[in-house]
Amino acid sequence: MQVSIIVIGDELLIGQVTDTNSGFLARTMAPEGWEVRDIKTVADNGGAIRQAIEEAMEVSDVVLTTGGLGPTKDDITKPLLCEIFGGELKEDPSVTANINEVFRKRGIRMNALTAAQAWVPTSAKVIQNRVGTAPILWFERTAPKKVVVAMPGVPFETEHVFVREVFPRLLEAFPRHDALAHRTVMVSDISESALAMRLSDWEENLPANLHLAYLPKPGLIRLRLDAHGDDMQTLDRQIETYAQELIELCGDNFLYYGDRTPAEILLEALGEKGLTAATAESCTGGNIAHLITSVPGSSAVMTGGVVAYSNEVKRRILGVREETLAEYGAVSIPVVEQMARGACKATGADIAMATSGIAGPGGGTEEKPVGTVCIAAATSSGRVRSETFHFPGNRLRVIDRASTTALLMALKLIRQSEPFYVTEPDKGKQREQQ
Amino acid sequence: MQVSIIVIGDELLIGQVTDTNSGFLARTMAPEGWEVRDIKTVADNGGAIRQAIEEAMEVSDVVLTTGGLGPTKDDITKPLLCEIFGGELKEDPSVTANINEVFRKRGIRMNALTAAQAWVPTSAKVIQNRVGTAPILWFERTAPKKVVVAMPGVPFETEHVFVREVFPRLLEAFPRHDALAHRTVMVSDISESALAMRLSDWEENLPANLHLAYLPKPGLIRLRLDAHGDDMQTLDRQIETYAQELIELCGDNFLYYGDRTPAEILLEALGEKGLTAATAESCTGGNIAHLITSVPGSSAVMTGGVVAYSNEVKRRILGVREETLAEYGAVSIPVVEQMARGACKATGADIAMATSGIAGPGGGTEEKPVGTVCIAAATSSGRVRSETFHFPGNRLRVIDRASTTALLMALKLIRQSEPFYVTEPDKGKQREQQ
Repeated sequence: MQVSIIVIGDELLIGQVTDTNSGFLARTMAPEGWEVRDIKTVADNGGAIRQAIEEAMEVSDVVLTTGGLGPTKDDITKPLLCEIFGGELKEDPSVTANINEVFRKRGIRMNALTAAQAWVPTSAKVIQNRVGTAPILWFERTAPKKVVVAMPGVPFETEHVFVREVFPRLLEAFPRHDALAHRTVMVSDISESALAMRLSDWEENLPANLHLAYLPKPGLIRLRLDAHGDDMQTLDRQIETYAQELIELCGDNFLYYGDRTPAEILLEALGEKGLTAATAESCTGGNIAHLITSVPGSSAVMTGGVVAYSNEVKRRILGVREETLAEYGAVSIPVVEQMARGACKATGADIAMATSGIAGPGGGTEEKPVGTVCIAAATSSGRVRSETFHFPGNRLRVIDRASTTALLMALKLIRQSEPFYVTEPDKGKQREQQ
Repeated sequence: MQVSIIVIGDELLIGQVTDTNSGFLARTMAPEGWEVRDIKTVADNGGAIRQAIEEAMEVSDVVLTTGGLGPTKDDITKPLLCEIFGGELKEDPSVTANINEVFRKRGIRMNALTAAQAWVPTSAKVIQNRVGTAPILWFERTAPKKVVVAMPGVPFETEHVFVREVFPRLLEAFPRHDALAHRTVMVSDISESALAMRLSDWEENLPANLHLAYLPKPGLIRLRLDAHGDDMQTLDRQIETYAQELIELCGDNFLYYGDRTPAEILLEALGEKGLTAATAESCTGGNIAHLITSVPGSSAVMTGGVVAYSNEVKRRILGVREETLAEYGAVSIPVVEQMARGACKATGADIAMATSGIAGPGGGTEEKPVGTVCIAAATSSGRVRSETFHFPGNRLRVIDRASTTALLMALKLIRQSEPFYVTEPDKGKQREQQ
């Protein structure tokens, strides 16, 4: 099935808000073989929205729009949908009842502006929005069959209604005839071009229904293998065979299998071994702890962490020695090793990651320029790994890169020599997200 | 000037990567009055890219593309650019020299695949990429004048080359004739529809060159006022007058003026008063510390923080009393108040924020369902504010909402009764980001 997504909102065209809805919709549809042909972002402007919807209906079977609905935006999009699909605006009592129910749960009363959201095009099939006040509008044309679904733009609402209400109905409306499979292999410590050269012969000899894509991330390269076919079982066996070949070719640069974040993989590895983890962060400022604790269930593994921005906190909570700070400076291997050991002790964890560096823009020196980051991982039993890195880029990029590197260092420390191998394919992840 | 942005990459259409480039480009151009007409995301597919570029040149003066260049993608986009603009691929020695220099800094040697990046269309003007290996390609047509600029897709590279190399040249190519001004007013503790009703009369009577937009965020509403005109000075005075009116209308719901994050505003307020801050986070897991430390210069204000996931850490590092945990449970007002006070003591900070709650998906009970979060802010001198909230949504949304609420609670605590008023307009922010 071919899908076009239209994202509506002035705020996106001036860059004040980043669109995450289209990516969510694409990720949700991909496992079912639904392909997003294009994504178009347009202004809250009748002409632009109408043109985008009409162009998208020319090329795609399904058109999804997000945004342009809501108490302060309705006046543009809904009359326009009547223009395209016919009918007129009329109050739908089931929507009024739903808005009342949503507001009752929030402990507030409906006002006139929200009440207007119950006025919907008579040409639309209405799907209730259980988590917000803007109803979902479903329009259909026949010969050839086309479906246009208008959804609200608030990401939480879009995600909720798409997974629970809209996509199941779309799958019914367009029963599936083909199959699509993905696998992701994570690789590190190699440049994209060096990796591409190593894989080029193999890649050229892939069967026509397989495709390899390179997705570089700070500190990682994701290799995504896609396969199209008629039958899911055959496809699954085929893609698994090629994924294993790919992993062999990556050799020591192979990190793990499956499209999960380093934090998810680390938590899984720790969970399997019954180990707990902690963080001691200076330059990453809580980001490593945030990445870990964003994963559902992390509380079973994560004991806690310390954001040790000041030297006083490094000393008082983590037990870093005054002399070490004086002799080597806060950004040094001895200090991060003491921080990691101190975090194990202070929080009672089995393993801890520590960072200390200069994220910038200020604070760099000749000897330790911006981007210098010392990272350590230590176990409560005394094993330790540490290294000094020089990361390129601005403050957020340095924080991002240092956080990923610390998570991978902890992973390597608990793996020791045994290869760390995750067998579950990507689909597990995608189901979990829903 | 009217701009179309084309974002190229299969990874974006399956939702594996979120496009942040188009937002960055739009934000950078907005202060100069350059308007993004539309953003289109297309696959790594010759036909789709060509169609998108040709359609965009019909409607916009400037077309910016990101992605589709790089060691593993060049083979599609560059021959296509030759098809559209004429010429052929030829090695450019200045690009080879630049790639060698970029690689020398990274301590690695150029390989054959990277060397191929120096082959560029003879119809393009080449702009060197000082932070990566893919050169920037500038194409021009006359009568009417159209410029197409092809940039790499790695966000760090795109941002760097656009601000330093591309946008200055575009401003020269299209000298400016009009002016555009923005102001942002931040509001809280009111629903979007209730606010819209309060503002509707005022909004309807705005001069035709002014426009108000509502941008709801978790826990906040951003009101953006836009103005178009001929002369920047007149426009600045006009928009300032209306922004002040808007602030008055928002009354007690007015939070601050200017498009900055709650963390930026809190840091500024603390900095002005010479105060330091710390965090004690259970359910937000380091996110508040991360939001604060993402701001350049935060090390002058932030002493540190504790991620107190386990009760043991709450007791050992933050001094939460065993009896309080036993009597009220970890998610309770007495515990978060002790956490906030304990964080002041443990880190030596003047003020601390604390959170404890159930972010989900597991862990909810009848009495304390998922979304229940207790938040406190306390000063070392003994003043404290605290409140229990019930946030809707999934784990990440609860973390997000609780973090914003904690930052605003700390802001309210240091503000006391005096209104907190930031006078610097939005432009300061946009310049800083560059």
